[in-house]
Amino acid sequence: MADIDPTRFLADLNALRKIGEFKTGVHRPTYTPDDMESRRWLMDRMREVGLDAEMDGIGNVLGRHAGGGPRLLVGSHIETQNEAGWLDGALGVLAGLALARAGLAVDVVAFADEEGHYGSFLGSRSMIGEVSEAEIDAAAHNQDGKPLRQALREAGLEGLPRLRLDPARYRGFLELHIEQGTQLENAGLRSGVVTGIVGIRYFRIIVVGQQDHTGGTTMAERKDAAVAAMRVLHLIDERFPMHVDERTVWTCGRIVLEPNAPHVIAGRAEMIFQFRDISEAVMERLEALLHRIVAEVDRRDRCSITVERLGHSAPALADPVLHAGLVEAAKKRANGQWQPMPSGAIHDAQHVAKIMPMAMLFTPSIGGISHHWAEDTKEEDLVLALHILADAAEDCLSR
Amino acid sequence: MADIDPTRFLADLNALRKIGEFKTGVHRPTYTPDDMESRRWLMDRMREVGLDAEMDGIGNVLGRHAGGGPRLLVGSHIETQNEAGWLDGALGVLAGLALARAGLAVDVVAFADEEGHYGSFLGSRSMIGEVSEAEIDAAAHNQDGKPLRQALREAGLEGLPRLRLDPARYRGFLELHIEQGTQLENAGLRSGVVTGIVGIRYFRIIVVGQQDHTGGTTMAERKDAAVAAMRVLHLIDERFPMHVDERTVWTCGRIVLEPNAPHVIAGRAEMIFQFRDISEAVMERLEALLHRIVAEVDRRDRCSITVERLGHSAPALADPVLHAGLVEAAKKRANGQWQPMPSGAIHDAQHVAKIMPMAMLFTPSIGGISHHWAEDTKEEDLVLALHILADAAEDCLSR
Repeated sequence: MADIDPTRFLADLNALRKIGEFKTGVHRPTYTPDDMESRRWLMDRMREVGLDAEMDGIGNVLGRHAGGGPRLLVGSHIETQNEAGWLDGALGVLAGLALARAGLAVDVVAFADEEGHYGSFLGSRSMIGEVSEAEIDAAAHNQDGKPLRQALREAGLEGLPRLRLDPARYRGFLELHIEQGTQLENAGLRSGVVTGIVGIRYFRIIVVGQQDHTGGTTMAERKDAAVAAMRVLHLIDERFPMHVDERTVWTCGRIVLEPNAPHVIAGRAEMIFQFRDISEAVMERLEALLHRIVAEVDRRDRCSITVERLGHSAPALADPVLHAGLVEAAKKRANGQWQPMPSGAIHDAQHVAKIMPMAMLFTPSIGGISHHWAEDTKEEDLVLALHILADAAEDCLSR
Repeated sequence: MADIDPTRFLADLNALRKIGEFKTGVHRPTYTPDDMESRRWLMDRMREVGLDAEMDGIGNVLGRHAGGGPRLLVGSHIETQNEAGWLDGALGVLAGLALARAGLAVDVVAFADEEGHYGSFLGSRSMIGEVSEAEIDAAAHNQDGKPLRQALREAGLEGLPRLRLDPARYRGFLELHIEQGTQLENAGLRSGVVTGIVGIRYFRIIVVGQQDHTGGTTMAERKDAAVAAMRVLHLIDERFPMHVDERTVWTCGRIVLEPNAPHVIAGRAEMIFQFRDISEAVMERLEALLHRIVAEVDRRDRCSITVERLGHSAPALADPVLHAGLVEAAKKRANGQWQPMPSGAIHDAQHVAKIMPMAMLFTPSIGGISHHWAEDTKEEDLVLALHILADAAEDCLSR
């Protein structure tokens, strides 16, 4: 068995936590000085365990294992959301480092900007060949609008080549991540073996009514966009439950009325609506249902209502062999204390899965807290996850 | 019959329109230099027609008729909403001036800040004794926060006494105003005799749920504030129609989700909801219904929902005698081209009605446009309204 060093693994996590420390969490947005320091720190650690470390032109850090034979890719990301947690991303990268330190034939990767400060999974999508130079030209910071090119230049990354993953080099990709939910905690479990990453489809629903004075306009005359928007959401609330699977989720997180004034009938409403499921078939069914609901309210109401798909990502199922390896390891290390489960959040693994087998392991999030500095996981659960991951990697590499 | 001069009336309206002109409308927010210039312009016009003009410590302009005997108070306001119409308010004030010019025993009034830049009907409420010095101390501009005291000082009003209306001096108050709706236009009518001004009750509904990641949180775990808010609005939409009168209106013009992000379950929702009716009994019934709806969703849903009344105004019915005078005049001047109707908007007349008889007359708004520079009314309708108002005033004063 691989000689895993959990003490050193926890020490690495705590050392990385110091870079950009914020309360009990960290603040390391992509390409900031603290983020770049953490990438250089990671390269030093990779070299200490014998990996050939390289940072590429978009900030990805890849540590290559020197030996021949079958290899695994293990990792995640190390930048964070603003004032966020110490484990989100870092856990998966430093778990990979711990496996490499134990002598397992793994390359370790830290994908850049998983957290989307400048784009959507720029690092992992770049490594599978999905990010064009034109996309980089057009990208900018999601809050302050700083061009990505400028950020890359300031980070010293301009002119560096962008690395591509060679699927022939790997048996697959493993990512350990915090759950970012309360499924495991609520079930009293210590580990989750991911069956797949859900797909997302999200939509903009626009209602056009007529802005009017609330006093001077009778109910019969009104074209109240807020009312029509509410009717769409009501039909979704009423009908979606009959057409979903057990773990489907659907959400309207954003509603914007115009002018959104207490004494003015809304002339326009915009909603962003999304659903997530592990099955493309379920998502096809729901998209058709959404269109029927919008068409029905559009026909009945005096407002005009349209829906457009803003984006989507396909579900990614875990590779059966890698998944089975994690399941066997979980049974051995934590029998009765783990469960199979889908990932409701998107991860780099979803993109890597387009070119090689993928599997993921979840460790509980205390109170489900995520993207907040208070994010945390019990040390014994972190160590358990590391052992499960190492066992599964060893099993895969030994076949 | 009084010797009404419609040409001079229209000329006055067009002259006043030049002060703070904006496109085809005007921009004269309360206490701005343009607003103060318009008040001084009005005092000059009042003096020309023999009125004793005075501006008071909150900006009200009152032109007193010199003779004895029965008198009427006629007027409205002359400041405007931002980039708003040329007739809203100005019409009622300059109609009063036209009546005085024709020799009718009227005092003319322009109440300050009807449009609420600094408060709620500051001028008319001050003239009936409802505005304390403490309220003035606390008031500030609704957008930039400038203290009312500072605005009064800069406008040169500091230290002036505030005028009070003496109900014993008047047979009543007449206000001519644009409709600010499309009732008259849609019915093909040219004038509306107001039966009363509706009351308003408005409420803040607060939903407290739990902010969560849309991917990691199952439907069974969620406390989605947007869903609970929608359920409240749905029940209002479903049940209010069974409990209202013909002209009741109810509106949710403002919805604010927190954090209002596409991929985050809303942790909080705030709605401003209001209804208006001419009958206190109807409003009592609706307020009780609203509380039942909120209590029902609060009980059924996992979110916590509360409602609080933010404000209200009581309905004000037109005085039967003054109203009958306007009806008779409308029959004579525009038989078959007028209707009785409630005012869905609030006007200074609602406050003046607390101390003396009140009646109002509406003239059509083209396309119902209000609080926008494109607001307009046909000249022949303006002149018709002036004649109806003059006939009614003459009838009242001759009794």
